[in-house]
Amino acid sequence: MKYFEDTAIGERLELGAHQFRADDIKAVARRFDPQRFHLDEGEAERSHFGGLCASGWHTGFVWMRMFVEYRNALTKKMRARGEPVAELGPSPGFQALKWLRPVYAGDTISYAMEVVEKRESKSRPDWGIVQFLVTGTNQRGEPVFTFSSINFVERRARRSA
Amino acid sequence: MKYFEDTAIGERLELGAHQFRADDIKAVARRFDPQRFHLDEGEAERSHFGGLCASGWHTGFVWMRMFVEYRNALTKKMRARGEPVAELGPSPGFQALKWLRPVYAGDTISYAMEVVEKRESKSRPDWGIVQFLVTGTNQRGEPVFTFSSINFVERRARRSA
Repeated sequence: MKYFEDTAIGERLELGAHQFRADDIKAVARRFDPQRFHLDEGEAERSHFGGLCASGWHTGFVWMRMFVEYRNALTKKMRARGEPVAELGPSPGFQALKWLRPVYAGDTISYAMEVVEKRESKSRPDWGIVQFLVTGTNQRGEPVFTFSSINFVERRARRSA
Repeated sequence: MKYFEDTAIGERLELGAHQFRADDIKAVARRFDPQRFHLDEGEAERSHFGGLCASGWHTGFVWMRMFVEYRNALTKKMRARGEPVAELGPSPGFQALKWLRPVYAGDTISYAMEVVEKRESKSRPDWGIVQFLVTGTNQRGEPVFTFSSINFVERRARRSA
């Protein structure tokens, strides 16, 4: 990751797209969210969703994986260019997670993150706090998923200390 | 589930406890959150966590499964007693998710939910909106995980309409 000082409000990361296949939706649901509309096409059609759709937590987990992969690829590129790489600290949590529309089997969700706020940490002067607005958008351009992720990001001051 | 009208503020559901085993932590991380402190004991010891710990999303997913299992068992019991069972609608999302402490391999997390708010839905008169405070607590009594879950719960009026 870039250092806290180099992270600009409005900066946008395009993480990529993921297709939610029926098999994956069911496998994740069997393990973690065994509700009928995530497990069986017929039952899902008769439910308020009207079709097989992914667990809301599944849409979040896929974001997590895409973000880790994006970060790993970026870190590799920065190291290859000889740039110093800032550490991403633990996340204390997030705000206002919204499942705006169902993610149906076959839907492809594109994930993006935008820096919406940054501030210095009072309790941990080596770190800055960066807030990202995370969004997932389906193949029709409709938002399906959003939340505000809060992360500690290393400051340059820490490295030079 | 009980109907919206029968749900009381302060009501508490004890969902049960789950032990996070190292194997599970790594399997979930490989699939969804492949960061070094979720994948390898040695790397985790050298990280800011100081030991192998579960992905934050893993702690959420386990809550989801325990809640579904709790609800299914309750529904079965209510049906056996001949009580009408209210439908739980889709969740529009949740607020203020906090990972308060790491969940280390071997930790046992007890999950509970408490009704903290209820109100009628303006846009959907058949439904009420119930807000639960979800908490996860480790075997030392320390809170590790919390969020406010918002759910639509069926109203009695709907059934009689």
